[in-house]
Formats: sequence, C-alpha cells, structure tokens
Amino acid sequence: MTDINQIADLVAKIGRQARLGARDIANANPASKNKALRMIAEHLQKAAPALLAANAADLEAARSNSISDALYDRLELNDARIESMIKGLHQIAELPDPVGLLGEQKMQPSGLQIGKMRVPLGVIGIIYESRPNVTADAAGLCIKSGNAAILRGGSEAIRSNQAIAECVQAGLQDAGLPSNVVQLIETTDRAAVGELLRATEYVDVIVPRGGKGLVKRIADDARVPVIKHLEGVCHVYVDADADQEKALAISVNSKTYRYGICGAAETLLVDEAIAAEFLPRVNQALGEYQVELRGCEKACALLPHITRATEEDWYTEYLAPVLSLRLVDGVHQAIEHIGRYGSHHTDAIVTENLSTARLFQRSVDSSSVMLNAATCFADGFQYGLGAEIGISTDKLHVRGPVGLEGLTTEKYLVTGDGTIRS
Amino acid sequence: MTDINQIADLVAKIGRQARLGARDIANANPASKNKALRMIAEHLQKAAPALLAANAADLEAARSNSISDALYDRLELNDARIESMIKGLHQIAELPDPVGLLGEQKMQPSGLQIGKMRVPLGVIGIIYESRPNVTADAAGLCIKSGNAAILRGGSEAIRSNQAIAECVQAGLQDAGLPSNVVQLIETTDRAAVGELLRATEYVDVIVPRGGKGLVKRIADDARVPVIKHLEGVCHVYVDADADQEKALAISVNSKTYRYGICGAAETLLVDEAIAAEFLPRVNQALGEYQVELRGCEKACALLPHITRATEEDWYTEYLAPVLSLRLVDGVHQAIEHIGRYGSHHTDAIVTENLSTARLFQRSVDSSSVMLNAATCFADGFQYGLGAEIGISTDKLHVRGPVGLEGLTTEKYLVTGDGTIRS
Repeated sequence: MTDINQIADLVAKIGRQARLGARDIANANPASKNKALRMIAEHLQKAAPALLAANAADLEAARSNSISDALYDRLELNDARIESMIKGLHQIAELPDPVGLLGEQKMQPSGLQIGKMRVPLGVIGIIYESRPNVTADAAGLCIKSGNAAILRGGSEAIRSNQAIAECVQAGLQDAGLPSNVVQLIETTDRAAVGELLRATEYVDVIVPRGGKGLVKRIADDARVPVIKHLEGVCHVYVDADADQEKALAISVNSKTYRYGICGAAETLLVDEAIAAEFLPRVNQALGEYQVELRGCEKACALLPHITRATEEDWYTEYLAPVLSLRLVDGVHQAIEHIGRYGSHHTDAIVTENLSTARLFQRSVDSSSVMLNAATCFADGFQYGLGAEIGISTDKLHVRGPVGLEGLTTEKYLVTGDGTIRS
Repeated sequence: MTDINQIADLVAKIGRQARLGARDIANANPASKNKALRMIAEHLQKAAPALLAANAADLEAARSNSISDALYDRLELNDARIESMIKGLHQIAELPDPVGLLGEQKMQPSGLQIGKMRVPLGVIGIIYESRPNVTADAAGLCIKSGNAAILRGGSEAIRSNQAIAECVQAGLQDAGLPSNVVQLIETTDRAAVGELLRATEYVDVIVPRGGKGLVKRIADDARVPVIKHLEGVCHVYVDADADQEKALAISVNSKTYRYGICGAAETLLVDEAIAAEFLPRVNQALGEYQVELRGCEKACALLPHITRATEEDWYTEYLAPVLSLRLVDGVHQAIEHIGRYGSHHTDAIVTENLSTARLFQRSVDSSSVMLNAATCFADGFQYGLGAEIGISTDKLHVRGPVGLEGLTTEKYLVTGDGTIRS
C-alpha cells in the first residue's frame, strides 16, 4: 500500500508541476521555444559521449536480462541515432509555430466578432517503449506546440532517457524556460503508468508510442483521452482500368519499401478482369524481393505454387515480407473487403478511371485514401507536416499523421463592445 | 442472464443496421438529405395530434409516478414545441452541407497532391433525458452531417419519442433513404445504455444530452468516445480599465438573460481599484432581478447586507438567481481564479485596455473567451453555426458549441500518378 501511495504522490507532484510548466510554455514566444530546441540539440551534441555511456549501461543490463535482438536494436544509441535526434530538433525549430494562430473573425448579427485561436492542449503524457530517441523527439514536439510533457519511457532505457532528459532540461534553462515543461518519470515502477493514465486533473491527452499491444492496453485502461495509433492493415486495389505498369510499381513499393512501417501494404486486391495478365507479373516482381504470397482460391488457381490465405490472413498486419492476395469482381467488392478487414489506416486504388477513383475515394473510410500512389507514403514528413508524433487511427480530434496541429486545440475568441443579448 | 443477452443482441442488431445506414447516408447527395429533413418536418406537422396524444399518455404515466414539476415541464410537448422542432429541421436543411468539402490540395516534393476531405463520423449514439424534441433535433443534425444515429431517450418519454421517430422514418423513406439511418432504441431497459456505451464496433461517438450527472455517468462508463458537455461555471471579470456602463450591462445580462443556460455567469470578479464605485451599482441593478449575491470578505465589507461566499460557492454552477462575487487585485488574480475554480466553458473580461484584454484572451483556457460581451452569447446559433447538438467542454476534437462540423472528421486524399517512394 505504501508503495502505491508513494507512486500516486509522485505522479500527482509531477502533474502539478506540469500544469505550472504548461502555463509558462503556452505563453512563451516562438523565439524562446526555438532557442530551447536548438540548445537541446547543442547539449545532445556535447553530451554524446555521456549518452553513449549511459546507453551502454542500459544495453549491458538488457543483455544480462537476455532480451530479444529486436528490442536490443531499438534500445541501442549510436552516433547516427544521436545525429538524427539533433537533426529532428532543428527541423522542428524551423517549422511554423502553431500557437496563437487566429483564424477569420466573422461578424455575427449581434455585432459580435467571433473567431478561433489555436492554443496548446496543456499537458501531454507520452508513454513509449525502448527507443530512447523518443525522449528527444517527443520533448521537441511538445515544446514547439506549447505543451508541457510528462515522459514515461521503457524501464530498460532508463539511463539513456535520463541522460537525454538532462540535455532537454539544460536547453530549456538556456532559453529561460522552466524545467517542469518536460519531466521524465524516473521510477521504473509500472504503477506509475496506471497513475498517469488516470490523472485527468493533470494530463490532457496521452500519446502512446509503441506496438499495438502497448497502445491497446493503454487505451483500455486510460481515463485521460488517448491519441491512438493501432495498426495498419493497408490495401492496394488494382482496378480493371489500371495502368498495369503503375500498378506493378505501386504494389511492389507499397509492400517492400519497408516491411516494418504501418503504411506497408498487407493485402493486394486485384480485379478478376485483369488477373490472368497482372498476377504473373506481380508474382515475378515480388519474387525478386522474396515476398511470400498468400492467395484466395481464385488467385491460387492462377498462381498454383502460392499458399492459400486463411480468413485470419485478411485481418493480419504482417510487418514482414508476406502479402495476402485476393481477386475481386470490381471496385465495389474491393471497398467492401477494405471496410470489413481493414484497419482504416491507408488504402490505395490504382486506376485511370475517374468515376471509379472518385467512388473509391468517397467510400473508403480510412485516414488516408490514395489514388495511383504507394501506401508507404503515409507519414507526416511526406504529407508536409514536417514532423510527426504518430499516425492516429482514431476518427475524433486528429486522423492520420499527427504533427504539431494535432497537439493543439482551438478556443473561440468573442469580441464585443459592451454587447448584451436581448 | 437471458435478459442481458437479449438486450446485448438487440443493441448489436441495431448497431449492425446503423453501420449499413451510415454507409448509405454518407454517400447521399445534399438534395436527398435536405428532402428528408423537410419531409420529416411535414410529417411532424401532419402528425401533431398523434404526437400530442402520445405525449399525453407519457405525461399521465409520469404523473402517476409523481415526477417533479421541472421534469414534467421538460417532458411536455405542445403546439409551440412541435412548431420549434419543425422550424429547427427547416433551418438545418438551409445550412451548407459539411460532407465532401475538399480543402487545399498541396503539392509535395514527391509529386503527390495531398488534401483533406470532410467526411461523416459514421454512427452517432445520442443518449438524452426527458425532452422529446431532442429526437427530432438530433436526427436532423445527424442526417445533415451524413451520419447514422442511434437514439436513446428517457424512458418516461418513450411514447412521444416513438411517435416522433415514426415521422423521421417516414421522411427518410420519402427521400429514398433507408430507415436504419435513424433508429430509436425502444426498450426502456437501462442495460441497453450500458451496451451502447461499449459498442465500439458499431458506434463512433456518443453525445449525451442532459444534466451533469447523466454526462458524467456516461463518460465514466463509456468505451466509445464521448463528446462531453459538463458544466458552465462562467465568470465575468470587470477590470479597473473597464467602461463601467458596459461592465454593468454585461454583468447583469450574463447572469439574468436566462438562469438555466450553461453560458450564464456564476461568478463576478471585480478589480479592487474600482470596487467601491462599481459594487453598489451592480448590487442595485441585480437587486431589481432579485439576484442573491454571495461575496468574498472584501466584497462583504463594501456590501454589508450580502451573504459570505464559501469555498464551495466558487466551484458552483447555480443555474439560479445567485451570483458569487469576489474582488481581485488585477487581471492576473482574475486569470488565476478562473483557472482554479472555472470549468473552462466561457469567461469574459470587460476592459478598454488592449494589453490587459490580450493577456486575458491568451491566458484563459476556456472554450470561449469573451471581451466586452456577455457570457450568455455562448451558443451555436449566436456563433453562426446555425444549430448545435451541445457545447463541448472537452479540449479534443471539438470545443465549445458543436454544430455540423463537430459531427464530422477529415480524411487525407493523396493523389499521384504511379508515384512510388524511393
């Protein structure tokens, strides 16, 4: 009991400090925020040897706990990864400041002028797994968007995260901003996550960064609103009216650009009318990448060597060189398949037919609907947001890549001249 | 057990039908949706005697359960209220259609054109108390915004709601739209609400319409996202640099325009520097409305006849002719008071000083921040939204009055020409 109470007290204390920090960063000038970002980058540069030493200690502890190779890779810092954090902070500093933007102020019949001003959300809780670079990236995005941040990284990265957080604090101080703008929860006790998820008084939104398991657990337990990034079961539909050269390039690129990203295609839908011609071509092209195809009955009839897909396959985000393949009798069946099995993330059609394209764009209920483009483009940099804290699979608040704007909200400014309601 | 299973099956069946309805209404043309709205209005007009009869039966049942006068008043339909539903539907039909709006499509370095299209949320669950007019109002807003609706009204209004829902169904049919676009949960079993709140597969968002108790219960139990309208503890701050004539008019109007609305002022903050002059004037003006003042120690020293406010008062949404009154030593203390005791709904400053006004507008974290205007203006019609389904006290997704746009989301449309990522 004492432990849990101590953790609760700790999270409440961090929360109260974050509320104070939020007030200061919300009113900070763009120049101060950008100075903080650049100074954090400078401190990371100077502290590189210390970061690598802290990380080495994390890696050694991880090794003695015999963690998986994948986890080890995510945990590891090196010169390139430190450079990438530094570059990311400079990029964020270059972006336009989202805070204080005042839209059109329309005159209403009452004589009131009414417009909306973009303002920070307040306090953002970031819960992430083993990648230490998230500490710098998330801090940078929160500072720029005028929010205070409470960071909670994976316990295996605690030393690395502490070393990076020290640089963040130093950079804030250099810019005359209070250190409680970005706080790291330093206890590795899991109870702290539970407390954070219920801290509606102190935290305005939680952004989990990690695999589907983490995100789902957090979303299930949270009382604070969560911006969720679940999974990307993305589709490419090759229409009968597709340009087959484009279709081939897009199908291969969507699958093979990087297998581990959420925008990677997991299912290829092909119109029956062109399947006899298109399937052997795509089979050969994907064969060069050693991509395993799993087909529906009709696809297997045309490509007898491939495995039959099970019902489970259509729901699966492989994140691997595997692609399920189904023949459909046209755009309507493609839309139906995507609606049933997809995850509303990113889905593409390849066609030269305008009416078919419009129908697909209108009917597919996904955060990104692509026409004659590869699904792997789904990220904030490619969309011109400049940076992203994740890709939202929610429909409310923010959908698709989440940049600085997704970390803000709006308030109405209402201006009168002694105006009263009669 | 059987009962609960039956309710679960019923809600799942309604949910599946709503998903089908959502697909149809999302793709319906503005003309069809507007026809449906106008035909529903026509059916309500024709069915007025039947509506009054159904309502009379509800009222009689309510009387025999000896409900409160306030509840009885909310439950009652009469010619004026039916006329108001009809007028509301015509007003919604006149509004611009939010669905399909395609914003700027910016060209990215990759050659992709990227823009956002406004689309319906999908299926909206509306849970409300005894007012039967919500059945027509909510159905109208959902139809116009391209969403399917699942309506669950108070059990005491079931006959009235059924009669109104029949008109809604008939109007949808006249416009060639399927009847599952708007469904009423007809069982009065409370378990149905619990099922609806957990139906993440079928429902995209829940909008509760009712008192703080209902909204809080729903928000606590829901797994589906909720657009919350909690309470309005609204403030008027009269600055030392206020025009006292304007300040007097705004203070009185904010409190007395209508006591029961969430935009009514509950606390008046006055700068000490002008209190000796302003307090007697506002006391006299509010006295004419029999408004009870509850003051801080300093206010009571200037107005010795008034009651002392307790700590509890500063948190209280009276919704009654009562106003708490506190002297502050300037705009900073006013901002601090509002941040501590307010509900982030609507707060006003009265001042002629530009710097003070800007500081207040920037620092007060409320859905509406007003300058020289009465807080009672906080509603969708006054803000030019044309209609509202509530006033959101959330920060995410939609903040302040919720009109048609708040019932929609956006998706990215990404257009290439065989574009792949290198």
